[in-house]
Amino acid sequence: MKPSEYALNDPIAAIATALVPSALGIVRASGKGTIELAAKSFSRPAILLEAGGNSLVHGWVLGPETGGERERIDEVMVAVYRAPKSFTGEDSVEIIGHGGTATVLAVYRALVAGGFRAAERGEFTFRAFANGKADLSRAEAIREIVDAKTDLARSRAADRLSGSLSSEITSIKNAFVAALAAIEVEIEYPEDEETTSGAFDSSVIGAAIARLERLESAWAAERLYQDGARIVLAGKTNAGKSSLFNALLKEDRAIVSDVHGTTRDWIESGADFAGIPVRLYDTAGLRVSDDAIEAEGVERSKELVSLADLTLYVVDGAEGLTPDDERFLSRGDLSAPTILVWNKADREGTLPLPAAGGDLRFDRAVALSAKRGTGLDGLVAACADLLLGDRGRASGRRETAPGTERQREAIANAITAASHAVEAAREGFPMDAVAQDLEETISFLGEITGEVTSADILDAVFSGFCVGK
Amino acid sequence: MKPSEYALNDPIAAIATALVPSALGIVRASGKGTIELAAKSFSRPAILLEAGGNSLVHGWVLGPETGGERERIDEVMVAVYRAPKSFTGEDSVEIIGHGGTATVLAVYRALVAGGFRAAERGEFTFRAFANGKADLSRAEAIREIVDAKTDLARSRAADRLSGSLSSEITSIKNAFVAALAAIEVEIEYPEDEETTSGAFDSSVIGAAIARLERLESAWAAERLYQDGARIVLAGKTNAGKSSLFNALLKEDRAIVSDVHGTTRDWIESGADFAGIPVRLYDTAGLRVSDDAIEAEGVERSKELVSLADLTLYVVDGAEGLTPDDERFLSRGDLSAPTILVWNKADREGTLPLPAAGGDLRFDRAVALSAKRGTGLDGLVAACADLLLGDRGRASGRRETAPGTERQREAIANAITAASHAVEAAREGFPMDAVAQDLEETISFLGEITGEVTSADILDAVFSGFCVGK
Repeated sequence: MKPSEYALNDPIAAIATALVPSALGIVRASGKGTIELAAKSFSRPAILLEAGGNSLVHGWVLGPETGGERERIDEVMVAVYRAPKSFTGEDSVEIIGHGGTATVLAVYRALVAGGFRAAERGEFTFRAFANGKADLSRAEAIREIVDAKTDLARSRAADRLSGSLSSEITSIKNAFVAALAAIEVEIEYPEDEETTSGAFDSSVIGAAIARLERLESAWAAERLYQDGARIVLAGKTNAGKSSLFNALLKEDRAIVSDVHGTTRDWIESGADFAGIPVRLYDTAGLRVSDDAIEAEGVERSKELVSLADLTLYVVDGAEGLTPDDERFLSRGDLSAPTILVWNKADREGTLPLPAAGGDLRFDRAVALSAKRGTGLDGLVAACADLLLGDRGRASGRRETAPGTERQREAIANAITAASHAVEAAREGFPMDAVAQDLEETISFLGEITGEVTSADILDAVFSGFCVGK
Repeated sequence: MKPSEYALNDPIAAIATALVPSALGIVRASGKGTIELAAKSFSRPAILLEAGGNSLVHGWVLGPETGGERERIDEVMVAVYRAPKSFTGEDSVEIIGHGGTATVLAVYRALVAGGFRAAERGEFTFRAFANGKADLSRAEAIREIVDAKTDLARSRAADRLSGSLSSEITSIKNAFVAALAAIEVEIEYPEDEETTSGAFDSSVIGAAIARLERLESAWAAERLYQDGARIVLAGKTNAGKSSLFNALLKEDRAIVSDVHGTTRDWIESGADFAGIPVRLYDTAGLRVSDDAIEAEGVERSKELVSLADLTLYVVDGAEGLTPDDERFLSRGDLSAPTILVWNKADREGTLPLPAAGGDLRFDRAVALSAKRGTGLDGLVAACADLLLGDRGRASGRRETAPGTERQREAIANAITAASHAVEAAREGFPMDAVAQDLEETISFLGEITGEVTSADILDAVFSGFCVGK
């Protein structure tokens, strides 16, 4: 079902924690009659029915009656929320039970058997938006927080959840609303002494546009922090690719977890590079195989390099550049930035770092020892620097940025419309035309917070959510 | 640290939900001063400090102060529990926030930075036991619930959590306590007219022993429901192993999730066979490879079969038994029970099911069509039947059973001591000796609920828990 077609207010339920054995798990429910319906599957219905908002009730979730008996499914605490003081703005419960896969499923199934409808993706947050509990940019920030792969991405999303983007957009919008109001006075009372140029202050509009442009340009870095980048390790066997791969992963394995590829042709893992979630790829898995498979591996390696956002080309610094290395580094098909990693730099007799030039193409060169773990910070900083580019470097941690492509697009549309208004005023177009451009600008900004919505916007925002959110 | 050495009462914190992107996540904390300490990392400290037990408070978790500012980490609900009305019996909080990996970690780190100690494994449940909130058998049931791989295993553990085993053990123990009291009267007042045989009623003791024996024998099935069984699919290429593998997995993939092997030599997946969590193994991954690897695969296949609890030998029923099949089925090294699966039984011209006998060794034969999905229920039932054996078949869903090997061992020790008492009484030993045997019996039964404990017992029970439980 499309989010824009979601029903409002009927009682829905969903599993809200991951179905993995863990200490605790949550099944949540919301909608009209939620507490009454939950009480029917609860060992102490009277206590639950009488419970005030923001309170916790202890008891057992019960299964449906079979043979005059009801199974005790799990011993739980039920968090009770009463409308409008809840996440969704409706009566809601969060059933906190034991975190076993089978237990969480059984509690959820008991609720569905008891009359709750299985929630659609993002349906809880959709209701929060529909009931005025969260504007659209904050609803999107919730999803960004859940998906955040690094602490920096999480922190930036939390800023948006706390309203940083909403208030910046509202502040900018107010500038356009004031400008529009002035023009409308001019249109209504043309006999006033004020001139056209007086009603339309292009410097105020220009300042507002500049603020929008700052927001728009912050998106490139934001997207990198959210989506991350692919970094491929290339280089000859024995250059130390695997050692470097493992050394780089040591940094923060806890945050970005492994996803095993469907094939074993390469090794892939995640790491946090100065807040950027990176996927590191190494073809080390092919090392031990026979010649035919190694050749296949080299092909795969080239394929990976062609898909990379950044290539780390690893060379044994004691051995120096071999003709093979020079061939690789002179290749015209290296579209992504490349860092020459001068490995084993701790050994005596390490050759000096070569400089790029002539046929040799690389963007940075970093000397390090993967084995000893020295010089890794420099490599990580160089990676972040190349990935972020100029705009990113300017973007501080606390700079407000849009959190989704949808928001960026609305900002871009607002800039276009506002620029059009400035142009129209300069060229002496009737004030009606200028006013229309400003109305459009305001409308685009309203899309960001959700004052202005359409089915398309709602579908775009909420279909990317998981069930239970 | 060993559980028996756990400190009591100092404030501890742990992540209680799985670190996987999901709608909600929980960080829990418990111990003296927990609410005061949590308030220091909370945006509304005064409200939290004043919150009553079993209430929920809305706000933001804050990071440590840096540069005069504190980062807003996540918008959360804090569930407040006040001693002794909490899981641990201490002041506790459960911080319910967004379920992103980075967010849950950041909330946890804020608590640890704020003065909470990182909890050890099982430390929350240990405190629940130490503070008299849960006896030892219920503490163990919590772990069983979390680890339950099927709904039946979950249901049996929930019975123990609700006290089914505790009350059966207590009831049996009371019979021994009464018998001991009668004997002690006899020892204290030997001049009374009652004879030795009158004070020691061996039929009452015999009945109590019989109840213990029923509990002990229920353990075999219980362990199977907890640990599950390995079922290996064997058979010639094209017999339909892969189709059968996939058809069997269709049943209930949601409950038992996949664990990919460290090698790709075979495919492994989990399924629920009448409440028994089974791991199904198929060597299908080798099918497409060349001859050398195929030979390697056959070796692996033999290795898997030798480790199996049950082998499903799949034959194309239209083709019938080939000499290869007969060779496999006549092998003396098939230690596990074997079911002959007569596949493609829906086709015309399917040969009749062969009977075991002579060199052909198998325990059951089942005709089915993996492709059409017919006859699968019969195969699952036959598997459960062979795995459970005689004792299991008698064990109904609601029969009380021990939940851990530790409990079974204590029951076995109690049976030995009680039988010794019966023997001693029959052979006319002094009543002192009989009394001592009964005291031992009662002590062994006390170990199950934790009235009698030792460092070894506590370590055995709690070291198997996860952190956060």
